[in-house]
Amino acid sequence: MHIREEAAAMKLAAPEMAAASAEARNQALEYIAQGLEENRDRIFAANAADLRAAEEASLSSAVMKRLRYDETKMRDSISGLRQLQSLPDPAHRVLLERELDEGLVLQKVTVPIGVIGVIFEARPDAMVQVAALCLKSGNCAILKGGKETAETNRVLFSIIKESALKAGLPESCLLQAELHTEIDELLSCDREVDLLIPRGSNAFVRYIMEHTRIPVMGHSSGICHIYIDGTADLTKAIPLIVDAKVQYAAACNAVETLLVERGAAERLLPPIASALDAAGVRLRGTREAADLVGRTAGLPVEYMEEGEFDTEYNDLVISLKLTEDVREAVSHINRFGSHHTDCILTEDDAAADYFLRMTDSAGVYRNCSTRFADGFRYGFGAEVGISTGKIHARGPVGLDGLVTYKYLLNGKGQIVGDYASGRKQFHHRDLHRETRG
Amino acid sequence: MHIREEAAAMKLAAPEMAAASAEARNQALEYIAQGLEENRDRIFAANAADLRAAEEASLSSAVMKRLRYDETKMRDSISGLRQLQSLPDPAHRVLLERELDEGLVLQKVTVPIGVIGVIFEARPDAMVQVAALCLKSGNCAILKGGKETAETNRVLFSIIKESALKAGLPESCLLQAELHTEIDELLSCDREVDLLIPRGSNAFVRYIMEHTRIPVMGHSSGICHIYIDGTADLTKAIPLIVDAKVQYAAACNAVETLLVERGAAERLLPPIASALDAAGVRLRGTREAADLVGRTAGLPVEYMEEGEFDTEYNDLVISLKLTEDVREAVSHINRFGSHHTDCILTEDDAAADYFLRMTDSAGVYRNCSTRFADGFRYGFGAEVGISTGKIHARGPVGLDGLVTYKYLLNGKGQIVGDYASGRKQFHHRDLHRETRG
Repeated sequence: MHIREEAAAMKLAAPEMAAASAEARNQALEYIAQGLEENRDRIFAANAADLRAAEEASLSSAVMKRLRYDETKMRDSISGLRQLQSLPDPAHRVLLERELDEGLVLQKVTVPIGVIGVIFEARPDAMVQVAALCLKSGNCAILKGGKETAETNRVLFSIIKESALKAGLPESCLLQAELHTEIDELLSCDREVDLLIPRGSNAFVRYIMEHTRIPVMGHSSGICHIYIDGTADLTKAIPLIVDAKVQYAAACNAVETLLVERGAAERLLPPIASALDAAGVRLRGTREAADLVGRTAGLPVEYMEEGEFDTEYNDLVISLKLTEDVREAVSHINRFGSHHTDCILTEDDAAADYFLRMTDSAGVYRNCSTRFADGFRYGFGAEVGISTGKIHARGPVGLDGLVTYKYLLNGKGQIVGDYASGRKQFHHRDLHRETRG
Repeated sequence: MHIREEAAAMKLAAPEMAAASAEARNQALEYIAQGLEENRDRIFAANAADLRAAEEASLSSAVMKRLRYDETKMRDSISGLRQLQSLPDPAHRVLLERELDEGLVLQKVTVPIGVIGVIFEARPDAMVQVAALCLKSGNCAILKGGKETAETNRVLFSIIKESALKAGLPESCLLQAELHTEIDELLSCDREVDLLIPRGSNAFVRYIMEHTRIPVMGHSSGICHIYIDGTADLTKAIPLIVDAKVQYAAACNAVETLLVERGAAERLLPPIASALDAAGVRLRGTREAADLVGRTAGLPVEYMEEGEFDTEYNDLVISLKLTEDVREAVSHINRFGSHHTDCILTEDDAAADYFLRMTDSAGVYRNCSTRFADGFRYGFGAEVGISTGKIHARGPVGLDGLVTYKYLLNGKGQIVGDYASGRKQFHHRDLHRETRG
């Protein structure tokens, strides 16, 4: 397959896809839902083949769990597809309508971005979700899933593509890339592809960011912090910190570093460290934090250097550090964090206010787990990824992050010369402004 | 000066700048306006020195005109500064407030982007306007103006910086880069700088885009089209086309290519070609268009190849081509254009509708000059540039393009485990959604 030729055809089809009606796009989602039901045996057989290959390759049970596509996951896919259908169309919305002068009307209208390349991990449910988000938002998409689910993805993609065509969407609206070598070809398609969304390991995402001129949306790392201020309520703090670390340690929104206010560390840190230790978390920390935990809780803490605080463990390991106050905590987070999601535990409104205002992250929380950073939990219906960039979209990215806008100007022959010379004046009267989340 | 060290200090100051009150930022704009008045002699003397140097370097009179900073331009700067003060704060706006569950409230709040690098052409009024837009939107900025106005820029920047500090904004909120060599250093500051906005020649902007990993907003070229459909009204079309080409031929929103519906070309093209010729515009075109104009209007038209239609003349030259219909015109524009601003002249609503929907450009117009693509004309108060990208901001970029958002989540100790296990359910109740243009 020649990605560039296919991407060029897709680029030309993109305006047609963008102009497709919301009904046609929703119909495609419904056909996918029906297609999954109708092809369950084929899908599960393909998935069984992937699982056998994974077993032969001795992949870990955690990975195996992600590769599996069973009744439960299919039910989730189908309910996700139905939920997406019920969401309002993110495209074709008039954000602003302004009369610049008599008979000269400007409209700012949302439109799909165009051609989006999504490279995602080996998870069959991701294939369905990503394709559905792109179709719902009116974008053409090139989809490359992890090779460990190649058989399942092939079947799923054929159902998805068939559904899109049956609903009347353009032939070139979707393309599956299957070979790892095609990724480099995709990265070079900066005239054809409008946006890349890579998901996966930090090293992989960084590789993508460094090897393409296409705009990239996503996150290379999730170094999330919890700062425990002196007024924190331990009865809330302990289960919350354990949840943020242990509930799914490999997630990008799991906490990696605990910062504790020095003046209250003797009270706060020992029970927190004990709870983490009991949950199977390995403790690392500055000499000061390590000594305190060793002395008060009798737990071993591995010494770590200041420079190591930019580590994302993705595992049951956590870094500990004491800070003088909320200011030092924020400055540590802004320096060592990845601008993903950071939380303060406090009963003090002034400290919370400072933290929420000054922390330069996509998500800034008070008294709740960092694990809430997720499109479903935010009520976006689904997410295509989480962005730690500041341009375009930030945090969990749902349908709104997959559209841009264009300006339409309708006139009756107006020329700029009349306004430049002062013969005419703009009056800039807003006829309409739409609500936008 | 070491840009990287200064940029690193600026990065740390950015959250403080972002948290500065709207009053302080407006106060800085007012101090700048007063500072310009108070330092008029110093400013005009510096500008006179720049103009003398430009004269010695034999720069063209068109360029000289842009370098000049006189009473009129100062009055425009001051009125621009006052107008910006009166605009609502683009930062600190709550776009969405949603209760995810009892006592767990998500807010989506606009925040400044952080550190913005703007590299702009030699125009003293641009220095004032760009600095003012960055201050108003709460961003820290590194400003690099064209070297031909170095003396004027130095005085203007000192007034601007002093005004910002007097208003209580952080010491590191603004930085002036003066040497061309500092641009390459700036391009390498991808950990410190959040966004680059280059303005200037196509080659320069392309150089910037190709030599940095910092997100770049702007346009490298403005290849704008006017398609004249068979129903076009010639009494509107002729002055409009002349305006779009001649009113300011060097502007990015000037028209470069006229596409004419083949079936009506005998009626439309001769008077249009004659009017352009009379306005001093040199005509180029396909063999078909050239022969038609030669035969009917007796004007010489230089033959050009299909591949040359991606040319931006920035001068009194225009390309002519016949197309079968609006479909072929749109497909030509999507292929050869730069996604800047394109216009259809038609009295046929169906043709207009097709053109407006299918043309993949930041601005798509009907029956008005492409020269309207401008932040002032759109009523944005001012613009920092025009974006032909599709990510983040498109078309003229005003204050809204200089902010992003963050998600704030306030809880009472909620953990994800309760929702994952089904013990609790999200209810996603919107408390507030703000209007956003």
